[in-house]
Amino acid sequence: MSKKISIAIDAMGGDNSPDKTLEGIKIFLDKNFSNNDFILNIFGKENELKAKLRELKINSGKIKIFNSEAVISNSETPLTAIKNSKNTSMWNCISHQLEGNSDISLSAGNTGVLLVISKMILKMMDGVSKPALAGLWPNKKGMNIVLDLGANVECNEQNLIDFAKLGSALFKSIFSKEIAKVALLNIGSEEIKGTELLKNSSKMLRQLSKNKDNFIYNGYIEGNEIMNGKSNVIVTDGFTGNIALKTAEGTANFITTNLKKSLNENIFSKISLLFSFHSLKKFKEKLDPRKYNGAIFLGLNGPVVKSHGGTDSKGFYYSIDLCYRIIKGNLISEIKKNLIYHTNDKK
Amino acid sequence: MSKKISIAIDAMGGDNSPDKTLEGIKIFLDKNFSNNDFILNIFGKENELKAKLRELKINSGKIKIFNSEAVISNSETPLTAIKNSKNTSMWNCISHQLEGNSDISLSAGNTGVLLVISKMILKMMDGVSKPALAGLWPNKKGMNIVLDLGANVECNEQNLIDFAKLGSALFKSIFSKEIAKVALLNIGSEEIKGTELLKNSSKMLRQLSKNKDNFIYNGYIEGNEIMNGKSNVIVTDGFTGNIALKTAEGTANFITTNLKKSLNENIFSKISLLFSFHSLKKFKEKLDPRKYNGAIFLGLNGPVVKSHGGTDSKGFYYSIDLCYRIIKGNLISEIKKNLIYHTNDKK
Repeated sequence: MSKKISIAIDAMGGDNSPDKTLEGIKIFLDKNFSNNDFILNIFGKENELKAKLRELKINSGKIKIFNSEAVISNSETPLTAIKNSKNTSMWNCISHQLEGNSDISLSAGNTGVLLVISKMILKMMDGVSKPALAGLWPNKKGMNIVLDLGANVECNEQNLIDFAKLGSALFKSIFSKEIAKVALLNIGSEEIKGTELLKNSSKMLRQLSKNKDNFIYNGYIEGNEIMNGKSNVIVTDGFTGNIALKTAEGTANFITTNLKKSLNENIFSKISLLFSFHSLKKFKEKLDPRKYNGAIFLGLNGPVVKSHGGTDSKGFYYSIDLCYRIIKGNLISEIKKNLIYHTNDKK
Repeated sequence: MSKKISIAIDAMGGDNSPDKTLEGIKIFLDKNFSNNDFILNIFGKENELKAKLRELKINSGKIKIFNSEAVISNSETPLTAIKNSKNTSMWNCISHQLEGNSDISLSAGNTGVLLVISKMILKMMDGVSKPALAGLWPNKKGMNIVLDLGANVECNEQNLIDFAKLGSALFKSIFSKEIAKVALLNIGSEEIKGTELLKNSSKMLRQLSKNKDNFIYNGYIEGNEIMNGKSNVIVTDGFTGNIALKTAEGTANFITTNLKKSLNENIFSKISLLFSFHSLKKFKEKLDPRKYNGAIFLGLNGPVVKSHGGTDSKGFYYSIDLCYRIIKGNLISEIKKNLIYHTNDKK
């Protein structure tokens, strides 16, 4: 038997934890009832966790509890959090991963602190200039990886190249049968458009991807093309990526709120809901943001996943599932392949 | 009688012109049948225009035709377009405005060329560091002005301050009864978030708006807050603004396409459409991008409006209506008020 996939889970981070996190774990265990290739290492206040596990009737050999008396709050800055970090659930998660006892860590806690702690403990991977936060984003044909979503406000050419390598490795680890197609987010598709930084990065990416099969480079795309499915690894700096992601969230929210209002405005539209119930349910499910929950922190000696703090148990389940798929898809070896490949390429 | 509002229209720019532009003009004339406070100065190939006017049965004293034999194509660069600019409909529009014969110009033609020609002919307004492209964007309570949408890829503090002044003046000229509430687009709402450029600009805006009533400064907002209606003048650099606007367009398109598909997938959902027809029509109308057609080029000695090249006659009508409302609302004096106000403020 090969080594089990081990996931370190900070059970205390985010709203309504550990209730939410343990309920998410229960969904994951139920769905993977007959699957024995993983172990969940759960960090938090042991007594609280055990009481909740009893309540949820979770009595599984696939989980291990690690007592961590302290919790990093959302109001803490990285500096105070590091000072007070001893025996916090978040810190203990990442340390467990560093010691080789977990393959990946998951937390719904304080984002800023998680990024700083992860980088401090796990350290940068050789050959990567900056780590990046990557997210899943639906497109017409399936799913995009978009990065950076906000870890790096300012980036240089090498950072963007690294994001392309990291993002395409992540894409291949999750969607093993598909080809990674990289695009640079810009304000026009012509070669002359955008900043000098983007023009230089584009030239370098075109060179790197020439006659190679680890990713295809599709050139620039504009904001309205992110979801058309022609590219699936969208590379940008952390400022632009964060604005794009949140603008898309706001737009989706605006439209669905208006749709709901319209479909509830009179007796006819309410009758229509009876007939369209199943179709609208499927529509809603496809756009359910919980399915895309989990931003992946890439470029360290091991991946760390950040769940949305405000998500519910189902959203938290999706982020556990994401961790599982990432490790099952051999993310780290995919990244190393991309890095080595291109290092050799430069010689 | 006070001076009439005069709008210079490039009838030849954009797809399907002059058919589309003249049909748009017809809608505007029909809607303003009993209104005598405007004149439309139409630039293009006289014979073509006259034939189409006859076909549309437009015989109005509210239009004047100005023959312009040449048209600037979409493939031209600003450089070649300026060389070949003599007697083009776009060039003649802006020149007419410079000579004081029109208050505003409208074109659906080549964006890059329009921006360069406008700046060349009309020149910058005193006290403005850079002109900006502003757009309308729906929010929960009404409408936002967002700028810059792509005229300036890189901006400094003074540019962003100017955009706030220009944008709030535009907002007040269109929505005279509302208060302009400015926000800076950023990746977090805390004071410490974002680039140094944003932090400095935010401090300056806070100082400017203190105890003043020409605009309120709401601080930073994130992408998901653009449409929540708490702010209505969203300020950002041209790169970020362009990415945000196009990402929102792409997201809206993705959602409505999926919704259509879902509501047509089976006999029940199709029946539902019979009952929800009117509600969905109203929903669709509210989100109709044609209603937001027209980006306003601000900061020159006179405003220039760019219609989307691919819009139809109804979209073009909305951009004529926008021109009319901007001049009726005294945009230029609103801008001067903001500029003078703050110049005095600095002393």
